[in-house]
Amino acid sequence: MTAAPSVEPVSAGSLAGFDHECDVLVVGFGCAGAAAAFEAATAGADVLVLERAGGPGGSSAMSGGELYLGGGTALQTACGFDDDPDNMFAYLRAALGPHADEEKLRLYCDGSVEHFEWFRGRGLTFNESLYDAPSWMPPTTDGLMWLGENAHPYNTLARPVPRGHRPATESFGGWLIMERLVAAARAAGVVSHEDTRATNLVVDDDGRVTGVVAQRYGEPVTYRARRAVVLTTGGFVDNEEMLAHHAPVLLGHGKVSAGLDDGSGIRMATALGAATRRMASVEVALTALPAMLVRGVLVNGLGQRFINEDVYPGLFSHAAVVHQPGPYWAIIDEEGFEDIPARDLWGVRPRYVVETLAELEESLGMPPGALEATVAAYNRHAEHKQDPYFHKDLKWLRPLRPPFAAADPRGGFGAGGGEGQGTGVAGFTLGGLHTTVDGAVLNHSGLPIPGLYAAGRAGAGIHGQGYVSGTSLGDGTFFGRRAGRHAATASQ
Amino acid sequence: MTAAPSVEPVSAGSLAGFDHECDVLVVGFGCAGAAAAFEAATAGADVLVLERAGGPGGSSAMSGGELYLGGGTALQTACGFDDDPDNMFAYLRAALGPHADEEKLRLYCDGSVEHFEWFRGRGLTFNESLYDAPSWMPPTTDGLMWLGENAHPYNTLARPVPRGHRPATESFGGWLIMERLVAAARAAGVVSHEDTRATNLVVDDDGRVTGVVAQRYGEPVTYRARRAVVLTTGGFVDNEEMLAHHAPVLLGHGKVSAGLDDGSGIRMATALGAATRRMASVEVALTALPAMLVRGVLVNGLGQRFINEDVYPGLFSHAAVVHQPGPYWAIIDEEGFEDIPARDLWGVRPRYVVETLAELEESLGMPPGALEATVAAYNRHAEHKQDPYFHKDLKWLRPLRPPFAAADPRGGFGAGGGEGQGTGVAGFTLGGLHTTVDGAVLNHSGLPIPGLYAAGRAGAGIHGQGYVSGTSLGDGTFFGRRAGRHAATASQ
Repeated sequence: MTAAPSVEPVSAGSLAGFDHECDVLVVGFGCAGAAAAFEAATAGADVLVLERAGGPGGSSAMSGGELYLGGGTALQTACGFDDDPDNMFAYLRAALGPHADEEKLRLYCDGSVEHFEWFRGRGLTFNESLYDAPSWMPPTTDGLMWLGENAHPYNTLARPVPRGHRPATESFGGWLIMERLVAAARAAGVVSHEDTRATNLVVDDDGRVTGVVAQRYGEPVTYRARRAVVLTTGGFVDNEEMLAHHAPVLLGHGKVSAGLDDGSGIRMATALGAATRRMASVEVALTALPAMLVRGVLVNGLGQRFINEDVYPGLFSHAAVVHQPGPYWAIIDEEGFEDIPARDLWGVRPRYVVETLAELEESLGMPPGALEATVAAYNRHAEHKQDPYFHKDLKWLRPLRPPFAAADPRGGFGAGGGEGQGTGVAGFTLGGLHTTVDGAVLNHSGLPIPGLYAAGRAGAGIHGQGYVSGTSLGDGTFFGRRAGRHAATASQ
Repeated sequence: MTAAPSVEPVSAGSLAGFDHECDVLVVGFGCAGAAAAFEAATAGADVLVLERAGGPGGSSAMSGGELYLGGGTALQTACGFDDDPDNMFAYLRAALGPHADEEKLRLYCDGSVEHFEWFRGRGLTFNESLYDAPSWMPPTTDGLMWLGENAHPYNTLARPVPRGHRPATESFGGWLIMERLVAAARAAGVVSHEDTRATNLVVDDDGRVTGVVAQRYGEPVTYRARRAVVLTTGGFVDNEEMLAHHAPVLLGHGKVSAGLDDGSGIRMATALGAATRRMASVEVALTALPAMLVRGVLVNGLGQRFINEDVYPGLFSHAAVVHQPGPYWAIIDEEGFEDIPARDLWGVRPRYVVETLAELEESLGMPPGALEATVAAYNRHAEHKQDPYFHKDLKWLRPLRPPFAAADPRGGFGAGGGEGQGTGVAGFTLGGLHTTVDGAVLNHSGLPIPGLYAAGRAGAGIHGQGYVSGTSLGDGTFFGRRAGRHAATASQ
């Protein structure tokens, strides 16, 4: 057994002094860190942000940039949708569940309109148009997109309105959000030290967190935080040992991160006795094409369907990767394939094209008759615009007819349907430190650890076992702001 | 937010003194505690066991009493089976996985023959006969039973031999094991304080665990442990908040415990900065009858099969409860039902008996044609003694013919097939403190916390995400013994 580098807390009394001082020390300059730093500085605190990379941004800057917002934002209204906080809450409670954090979720939904305006106030713009087709990410600059609200059973639990808010740029927009938030934080007076990796919390004799020890170019640097430390270090998808211990379902799969989500903040705080929640919860994405799936069927390695294919893509991914035997296949017919708009094809081409399902079963290594039975049942009901198994929206229901094709998510996007090298799956972690709605980190007795806050994926947010795009940037910034405000006024 | 009673560590310096002293203090008198106490006392230590209930036994005493042992035990040999540690390891690595703890598992398999003899040395006897039928628990006094070793895919990964070792008593045998282990511990000089609930660890200025604070009839009592504290407090299935935070799949289901598995040991240690592993891993049992399932099919709420019905019953339970949409149904025909030996019927009677599968689908609320398609596929292959979907053993394969029946696990056992009140599911938790093979509890830097050990379900044992009956009593006693020996010689 080899010991990892120590993450144990350091006694303030053991230090000769501090190299740097501030009121609020934020660890990590992704979206949660930027939001926390901005609000703390705006509240009058002297704020310093540590970032272990050479510049700010983190995994947030690499992300798609969707923000899950609603409750009646100006963008929703401009696009002709009528939403309210209760309606948003009803959807998210189901979609982020089971066991979403209802206390945090209630605040998140009630504050969503204001939070949208806060983003606009930081200089982000959103085009007033809806991308009205199933997609992981619209290839347009449309400002609004659906994220599963219009699929069964969610469309029976809440009035379906789109809530994916996209800043005005094509494709991935995380960089733009981070550019604006970092600029806003700097304009508010926030100072950052890059290439500086926090390694240990500093604690005084009363158990209060009063700073951190960090490493910079191999040398220790110490920071005193007069009011509080805010951990916004991200999740732990880049830490193989933590994955093995807490979220093994992601082992061996791709990582949705900038490569530095090693759980360091979670480890520093748990070493001090902080509690965690939902460390096994994960986001997973299967590189299967929503536009192809809605027009065909998604089946497991035995040819069985298991979900309505028009759900939020992360949900069919989770249903597959977490619960079904692989490999997974998108099965479609020629008519369906040709119906896919070119902009939604993402370079995917079917790996097998055949005249009969029997041939396809053999090619895919399925039991004889398996896929035939699945498609026969699908077709029989689709004739009557019904899907009694999973309730896919009737607009997608149409009997599948030869020739048929199968696409393999392991082939990836944009790979021309070739033999993929990976698993076709990538994800990140959702569990983290147990925090109050104000970001205070709790110990195992349910009490706040004085001087310690967390937000973003270092903390457990609004999520239960489910996930929807935009809720990580969303709750990271929303609760990051709250943590920053409260940290700024933490008693000294 | 209401704070729970504090589980934070108490500084030794803050105590006026200790009410009691010993070398090794064991917290919890279930199987792991008894094994640890016995070995520590045998190694010469002055051992005291705290038990919060009125007497020893805990959840172990309520359990079935199977011990998962093998590698060539005298009982296996007497029953005509040839096993070895590598063969046992190959099975358990798969059955307790993915991600079983291979280091612990290797020791467990290599030491299994000796561990069986240790049980015999403590006065347990095992009848030299095999119960050769699928069952949650044989209603006989046979000493040996199968626990999934003879089912696909495990029978392709290891030579199938039975390893369920049962002490000579009918039905539940946990009480007998605990009677013998407690007697052995007392004979070795172990003293126990009952009605005494440990609430906090006591730590000296160097971070060494030197005792515990406990509650007895509402009054605090303090215990000094000169060498070590061994936490054997069990899992956390009886703690709703911990379930919600770490293993929400068990929320709302029945609890396999004596009612006191509240995770107190895990919480006391994590409050001190101990690491945990696999807190989301669970054992689940569905009250479905193995003897009925092997002769029919197990389907989900959509009428789909999802596993070979002849696996270890906990595995079909896990596959259903964790991964499939409910409710779950055991579908059988009259011929199959009448073939079930009376002793394996456990009072279960089908809830629906019909002439056609179409009627059954309607009664069970399944999509029209769903069950018909499943049974048609099953029958078509069964005619040729094949199950290309899940590879159930060919001895069970036979086309199902009218009349048909469905049994509902929610009806429970012994309930005459009536309307059950519960979910038909009960379980317990497998995750816990991160320990070395000698039971030393590790912190988040991978280093042992001086003076602190754990075993049984308070610690993470040999299990990854899977479970097999007898491995909890098995690894609880095996690693409990190791923890007791090492605690007895822990440096002062």
